[in-house]
Amino acid sequence: MIPGSDIPGPLTILGADDPGPVHPRTPPARGDPGHHGPVRTIDWRGDHVVIVDQTRLPHDLVHRALHTVDDLVHAIKTLAVRGAPALGVAGALGVALAALSTGDTREQAARVRAARPTAVNLAWGVDRVLAKLADGTEAVVAEAVTVLEDDIRLNRALAHRGADWLQARIGKPITAHTHCNAGALACVEWGTALGVLRALNERGALAHVYADETRPLLQGARITAWELAGMGVPHTLVVDSAGPSVIANGLVDVVVVGADRIAANGDVVNKVGTYPLALAAARHGIPFLVAAPESTVDLSTPSGDAIPIELRAADEITSFNGTRTAPPGTAALNYAFDVTPADLVTAVVTEARVVERGAP
Amino acid sequence: MIPGSDIPGPLTILGADDPGPVHPRTPPARGDPGHHGPVRTIDWRGDHVVIVDQTRLPHDLVHRALHTVDDLVHAIKTLAVRGAPALGVAGALGVALAALSTGDTREQAARVRAARPTAVNLAWGVDRVLAKLADGTEAVVAEAVTVLEDDIRLNRALAHRGADWLQARIGKPITAHTHCNAGALACVEWGTALGVLRALNERGALAHVYADETRPLLQGARITAWELAGMGVPHTLVVDSAGPSVIANGLVDVVVVGADRIAANGDVVNKVGTYPLALAAARHGIPFLVAAPESTVDLSTPSGDAIPIELRAADEITSFNGTRTAPPGTAALNYAFDVTPADLVTAVVTEARVVERGAP
Repeated sequence: MIPGSDIPGPLTILGADDPGPVHPRTPPARGDPGHHGPVRTIDWRGDHVVIVDQTRLPHDLVHRALHTVDDLVHAIKTLAVRGAPALGVAGALGVALAALSTGDTREQAARVRAARPTAVNLAWGVDRVLAKLADGTEAVVAEAVTVLEDDIRLNRALAHRGADWLQARIGKPITAHTHCNAGALACVEWGTALGVLRALNERGALAHVYADETRPLLQGARITAWELAGMGVPHTLVVDSAGPSVIANGLVDVVVVGADRIAANGDVVNKVGTYPLALAAARHGIPFLVAAPESTVDLSTPSGDAIPIELRAADEITSFNGTRTAPPGTAALNYAFDVTPADLVTAVVTEARVVERGAP
Repeated sequence: MIPGSDIPGPLTILGADDPGPVHPRTPPARGDPGHHGPVRTIDWRGDHVVIVDQTRLPHDLVHRALHTVDDLVHAIKTLAVRGAPALGVAGALGVALAALSTGDTREQAARVRAARPTAVNLAWGVDRVLAKLADGTEAVVAEAVTVLEDDIRLNRALAHRGADWLQARIGKPITAHTHCNAGALACVEWGTALGVLRALNERGALAHVYADETRPLLQGARITAWELAGMGVPHTLVVDSAGPSVIANGLVDVVVVGADRIAANGDVVNKVGTYPLALAAARHGIPFLVAAPESTVDLSTPSGDAIPIELRAADEITSFNGTRTAPPGTAALNYAFDVTPADLVTAVVTEARVVERGAP
């Protein structure tokens, strides 16, 4: 038996026992008693991968079956699956798909590894599972499933460690600002930055969350807002450039974000728009907390300057839903990530530790 | 004869001598020899106002005739006419419309004055013309037309003063970052921040402009990009939250923005998203230049904290072009402006002076 084929997951909660085509579902409004539980973003089903297609949220909760490495690479490139921890798991499961296929495993694994350049987790997941190749296909699949199960366990440990740190520091129901989506949908389930807030919420210690919409792909407006509604947490959306005003106006106690890669010197690479929040948090003396698994820490990269920043297509900026917004011929520079220098980071929390930095 | 009825304007350039319905025109792509010239954003036609409807740019260049104060107030509230200097002129012309109508002039002028709360220019334009009420309708209209003509003259003076300052400071072809639209379409013609860049361009001293898209209403992506294409200036669009990365990566020599109000202590209120650029410019040691007419300076307001920040409708954020992006029921906080503290401003340039501050 292929290990992992009987992993129970919350997919059944969502009425999607037979993933494949499309299972639309209108998410409940905030305050609606039908709050959805956590979602398993990526899962292994014996011989294939199932993901929640994040390009369809919040309007449709669609599960998509990925049977080949090509399917998976396409899903990664289009951000149907995204978020550094989920990409680590996608990398791991990609090697399992490759090992089960008739093609060359290493060649296919290399394509998964190269699907996006910035998050170190993707390469980490591929490499960890590829190391089992000599032990046979069953060992490869078992290792991939372990990576998936670890993600859930490590996220919870990280989240509670971060919640402990914030409660000790702030000592009242907390209002937090977050950017992009570092929630269940960036992981297998539970979340990193949003996982910390989820843990606070379970303890009755979360008052309110301000979420940036996160241009150009609106992960905050679409996915984080959907997750917060699912958790029943009062939340408010702002445009990205208003985040520093939210901080300046004293509306939040802390900024909590995830990370796509953390360099040896503590520089943090995360979704573009993280850096301005760190600048504002430092100016206004509130903590800037980065929540990410140890697999995000890349000691082989000395500083943020050495991390490749993915450039995405210009039309993510110049068009919206297929409608052109900018004049014809307008060029755009579409950084997917930015670098927050270590001196602006108050603390990094992982499943294993809290590393405090110089900032307030 | 009503003064101002024979003002020649560049409307004829645009084939819109008879403004009223719709005059669509596809703007030229960058590099296209058919670059459009400057546009007269707001104009007086003897007994009514004509504006360029900025909600229709860049796809359609539509002139709209406004015959009543109600028409004008609606145009102001929907941002069909926008930008602090243009609002000053709109305020002035609004009093002319009121004086020519059968209604109560002061009551109508008060409605124009209250149409938007943050830009001091709107109230300034209303008050300046209202002071002529005792002198009769003809004097009111003449004063309104003077406000309009002054705007053009003052903008050019301001722009050349700013260009002089930048050339003296930077001394090579300049690459600038700008936010929102402080161009011809924020004024009668020419522009303030973009006017400075227009003056540099005329001198052959402008290399490239990075423009923020400016969520939620995309004035940068729609209007600034269209103006830069019209000027034939190489330009690149970025999402708002990438501006600090553009600065951190050394791509620009200066940040140049307009202002909606400048307090007595030098704090600058401008379109939300200005403040994060000022934080980044200060960190990376490049000048942050504010270009605005003297009418923007409000000595009666001690600091930025005392300036009312307009909150606009949540659905500007939660929807896009009529399509809902956020989950149903998601709340949004839609600041129209932010406050940049005086210590982050390198210089303010007006038609009369350059005031240098402490920043680099």
